[in-house]
Amino acid sequence: MSSLVIEKMDQAIGILQETDTDVWLTFVRETSAVRDPALSLIYGPATLTWQSALLLARSGECIAIVGHFDAETAARTKAYTEVIPYHESIRPHLQEVLARFAPQRIAINYSLDDVGADGLTHGMHELLRAHLAGTPYASRLVSAEKIIGALRGRKTPTEIDRIRAAIETTEQIYARTFATLRPGMTERAASDFMHRLLVEFDVEAAWDYEGCPIVNFGPDSPVGHVTPTETVLAPGQIIHFDFGVRQDEYCSDIQRVGYFLAPGENRPPEPVRHGFATIVQAIEAAVAEMRPGRTGVEIDTAARAAVTGAGYEEFKHATGHHLGRTAHDGGGVLGPAWERYGDAPLRILEAGHVYTVEPSLFVEGYGEIGIEENVLITGAGCEFLSRPQTELIVLREGR
Amino acid sequence: MSSLVIEKMDQAIGILQETDTDVWLTFVRETSAVRDPALSLIYGPATLTWQSALLLARSGECIAIVGHFDAETAARTKAYTEVIPYHESIRPHLQEVLARFAPQRIAINYSLDDVGADGLTHGMHELLRAHLAGTPYASRLVSAEKIIGALRGRKTPTEIDRIRAAIETTEQIYARTFATLRPGMTERAASDFMHRLLVEFDVEAAWDYEGCPIVNFGPDSPVGHVTPTETVLAPGQIIHFDFGVRQDEYCSDIQRVGYFLAPGENRPPEPVRHGFATIVQAIEAAVAEMRPGRTGVEIDTAARAAVTGAGYEEFKHATGHHLGRTAHDGGGVLGPAWERYGDAPLRILEAGHVYTVEPSLFVEGYGEIGIEENVLITGAGCEFLSRPQTELIVLREGR
Repeated sequence: MSSLVIEKMDQAIGILQETDTDVWLTFVRETSAVRDPALSLIYGPATLTWQSALLLARSGECIAIVGHFDAETAARTKAYTEVIPYHESIRPHLQEVLARFAPQRIAINYSLDDVGADGLTHGMHELLRAHLAGTPYASRLVSAEKIIGALRGRKTPTEIDRIRAAIETTEQIYARTFATLRPGMTERAASDFMHRLLVEFDVEAAWDYEGCPIVNFGPDSPVGHVTPTETVLAPGQIIHFDFGVRQDEYCSDIQRVGYFLAPGENRPPEPVRHGFATIVQAIEAAVAEMRPGRTGVEIDTAARAAVTGAGYEEFKHATGHHLGRTAHDGGGVLGPAWERYGDAPLRILEAGHVYTVEPSLFVEGYGEIGIEENVLITGAGCEFLSRPQTELIVLREGR
Repeated sequence: MSSLVIEKMDQAIGILQETDTDVWLTFVRETSAVRDPALSLIYGPATLTWQSALLLARSGECIAIVGHFDAETAARTKAYTEVIPYHESIRPHLQEVLARFAPQRIAINYSLDDVGADGLTHGMHELLRAHLAGTPYASRLVSAEKIIGALRGRKTPTEIDRIRAAIETTEQIYARTFATLRPGMTERAASDFMHRLLVEFDVEAAWDYEGCPIVNFGPDSPVGHVTPTETVLAPGQIIHFDFGVRQDEYCSDIQRVGYFLAPGENRPPEPVRHGFATIVQAIEAAVAEMRPGRTGVEIDTAARAAVTGAGYEEFKHATGHHLGRTAHDGGGVLGPAWERYGDAPLRILEAGHVYTVEPSLFVEGYGEIGIEENVLITGAGCEFLSRPQTELIVLREGR
């Protein structure tokens, strides 16, 4: 575990130098109740209890000021050059360490647009200002969103290996799930089957358990972040899943789509085939644009145009998002310039980023079509980490 | 599930009236990445993705403004009188709903002292101010800490039943664990044994898995929030555990202590017996003070005086904390008036509160002694939810 933390800490120091930041301060407490998403990157999976300050300086010094109870755990991360335990108040220690570095810019974990960089609570922000009152540092606080976005976004080789492993597990679970589908099966039963495979593979759901997988059988199943229903699989319906696993702390997030032939059909009807082909083309259009230097909105525009150009209503979500320690990882988004996305669609794609690509459309009378692939940005362009779905999974009675 | 949410929502409306608050606004996004601890009380275990506003009004109206993807799940909670889905921006909807209530005071989820009431991130606080810019409401934001503290603290009958069940499971796990201890066993092996029982009982660890249980064999084991080590159990040592489970969303948090007799000993040595008796007395002193109307610092003072009065160094932590959805629940603390606890020790105990009581001391040469009981405040006084440990668990070779 701690080798990955050290790998990310080394990366973080480089990002501090690159962004001209003197000190990055992660300020947390009772992380079992509210956990700053940045904490796992620079501390690992353990929790911190009392007010705790993790300071990374551009010089490479890394200092943890923690309640005395947590000092041994902090030391065991081997990621900190100094662990300072305290008994009553963090304030004098925090002031002393900041005075040592005399930083002009102190980056703290808040962001309007990037939830992964917004782990500082408002109460902790007020406490921090109180701790720094009367020092020059209270007015030198800036957002760490660029640092955290870069650190979360740029996957190290260890992180990419873990994401690949989560994807491999997901593909095995999908293969076994599609092999078990029969008319009369409910969405709930399909979800239960996949939950049993989570146990068998000893992995967790990539997002909240009750809603992972999302299952949509046919046109009447509610689309969106909804737990599977008692809707029954019937011939002549589109079958749609959105599912991922968290394995060794890293996630996959993959959508797959199938069609159950109706009696007398030899292949899916034309509207279903056209919808499926449109989504495959939309993914191809997105991936053709994905390389270092492009922005998220450019990728989104390419995928969105492929869907609307084929005569479908545009999908009401982003084309994709970062993937990593969480299924919806922080940083930029491959999304449109809608108010709710803020500046996130304008972020630049970089080598080492891993994104989902997930355009969707609805085929009247048949159901939801969505494919979601997982894609790594490389030096030259990009690479599928998932085996892309280019053929509709066609099921029939009496297989 | 949703019946508990409805139970807590009803309670919340009463607390709004009691605290003279017009609207309580919980403002969240991507709760799979950063989860406001208040969310489970008023929404259940599901996640929300886009910026979402859950508004409870003193009139009893409960309105959820959520991304369209989440609308079906919000409706299924059956806890909201109105669910407003949106596609692009929450702002106009939020302004419209607030205008409808024209609140003088809007409580939002931040707190300097209570982590359970501090789920609003600083970035979300800034976004909320931007959404309300130009309206009269931007200047009417107040802390919801009293509301959330009361709501989390006052357990409903359903919640108390669940905590009792978690405690019962914990006591069974302790009984089986103490029965398996033998000299030569490592702390890590004892922890692994308890982790297997978590699977057998189909419950989770009450806090981070690696550090739950805390295990201390003898005087050289590091005390505090430390994962179990390769330290080996030897005769003549104190055995100390701190452990809890989360079962059906509610937690236990219990410490138990034993002693392994050295060859030739018929009973634990005097320093161990004296230390144990002191901690039992400290718990009795605390519990004698625990009733509605007392403050946390009064309880802490009673327990602390029992330990220092017996000649031991005072313990460097609070005597106890709330217990509920998390092991360290929010609200007040049974603690000393140290700066790090802020105002939390001054909060009043109320009927329905559940606290841990956990004084500790160290016996030189033998190890850590800590007992932790779980106690319900009743109308008249208090009641042990755990079966209090009043006898040292004495183990011997060749049992």
